[in-house]
Amino acid sequence: MKSQAEKADYFRSLHKEGPILILPNAWDVPSARSFENSGFPAIATTSAGLMVSLGYPDGESIEKKEMLIAVRRIARAISLPLSADIVAGFGRTADDVVQSVREVIDAGAIGVNIEDLDHSTGKLYPLERQLDIIRKVKAMGESIGVPVVINARTDALRHFGGDERAKFEEALHRALAFRDAEADCVYPMGLTEYSAISNFVKILDFPINVMIRKGLPLISILSSLGVRRVSFGPAAMYAAMGLLKKIGREVLDAGTYDSLLENAISFEELNALALPRKS
Amino acid sequence: MKSQAEKADYFRSLHKEGPILILPNAWDVPSARSFENSGFPAIATTSAGLMVSLGYPDGESIEKKEMLIAVRRIARAISLPLSADIVAGFGRTADDVVQSVREVIDAGAIGVNIEDLDHSTGKLYPLERQLDIIRKVKAMGESIGVPVVINARTDALRHFGGDERAKFEEALHRALAFRDAEADCVYPMGLTEYSAISNFVKILDFPINVMIRKGLPLISILSSLGVRRVSFGPAAMYAAMGLLKKIGREVLDAGTYDSLLENAISFEELNALALPRKS
Repeated sequence: MKSQAEKADYFRSLHKEGPILILPNAWDVPSARSFENSGFPAIATTSAGLMVSLGYPDGESIEKKEMLIAVRRIARAISLPLSADIVAGFGRTADDVVQSVREVIDAGAIGVNIEDLDHSTGKLYPLERQLDIIRKVKAMGESIGVPVVINARTDALRHFGGDERAKFEEALHRALAFRDAEADCVYPMGLTEYSAISNFVKILDFPINVMIRKGLPLISILSSLGVRRVSFGPAAMYAAMGLLKKIGREVLDAGTYDSLLENAISFEELNALALPRKS
Repeated sequence: MKSQAEKADYFRSLHKEGPILILPNAWDVPSARSFENSGFPAIATTSAGLMVSLGYPDGESIEKKEMLIAVRRIARAISLPLSADIVAGFGRTADDVVQSVREVIDAGAIGVNIEDLDHSTGKLYPLERQLDIIRKVKAMGESIGVPVVINARTDALRHFGGDERAKFEEALHRALAFRDAEADCVYPMGLTEYSAISNFVKILDFPINVMIRKGLPLISILSSLGVRRVSFGPAAMYAAMGLLKKIGREVLDAGTYDSLLENAISFEELNALALPRKS
């Protein structure tokens, strides 16, 4: 079992060298363990998936304490590096957010997603706040000996004022600043179209994260464009819940069980997802 | 919103009249809410699914308190009747088990599954203990004004000593005793084959629960045999985890996302699964 520092170093290295990092986002123990079994090199949490699974809509309506318990459950079940999505950081000031990062590291994570959207107003936080967070998280990580991997997310493509061009320019402006503040990866939420991704990577010349959704280029193409990290976001949860909807329809309308039995794992396999992976 | 007593009465009535009760088993808030949206008349929990989702193998290795919190989360998110699978009751004595039932009712459930397998030994509990539990749960329900619906499960078909015939006879013997102790439904775990189901129902002449698995007759046939309740057990969780396995294989091997996007629900639909259903 690697130490948290070793996991952080390994996770950081996946952004810099080797094949593009494909990062599945889990919401509970068995989803994380399933992805671990599949052979992904690291796991992230999906904030939407994790929160909805506990009965809270996405955002910061869940209490931080309950989010931390869920992160800890996942972290102790897997041996892979775990990156936690902490939304905008569960706090107003940079110091509050650094405290939240400290707490998810204590819960077993070694990386974080931090976004710049203020969920209480629907507007972006000032860039300076986000840069302050990045710098302070790095210093905190050094002080506790866990070099926290920071995926700095901007929601400018969706939430900045103005037309598409203004949004793109603000996203790029923020991304360049995140890069220069020494984040490890930049996550321009909503960047999905081929030429936009291509332009973004060319100008930034730094690891970016894109999220799987309909219309996203295939992984081989993303890789050729220089994208370093592609994450599931809540996509696997959307798919799993879509399957339940399909099952409900089939069982109630047709009285058959095909979609319940197709691809199903066994009781033994399910139970094994509660326990550490056998190496 | 119906009271717990009204929900219990309604849930009980589904065992006696109208179409066969198709009961989906959920393990967290969104799985329960998805089934509610599909139009099922009631929801049950799957002990295996619920426990594994929190990082515990099936059985009673989860602390009762944590199980109760999970049941409460589900109960407060749905308006349908909720039946909780409490395994063998989280206690050695009948009074311990009655206390556990009381606690899941306090958490919002109106029915329970109680099995007769002692997970610590892998053997069946004495029948008298189970009958004592049924009688005492009924008395407790009357005392608090919630007529708890009892699905009395026997694991004799799998865990009683002897050959197939001895197992079948013990399951039937226990089922008849559960019926006469005024359980609401009897659940002979492992009863899946057409003629065995047919014989069991004919002799028992009482509502029985069968679980969906490969080889189970279709719902229309179960209904014609006189089965009153067919539950998912952990099947939907097996299917959802099977889908994650398929997704992992596809993304890592082919670099495509088809199984992630097929049937997927939207972000808005996912978020809505954390909130009460709009009527």
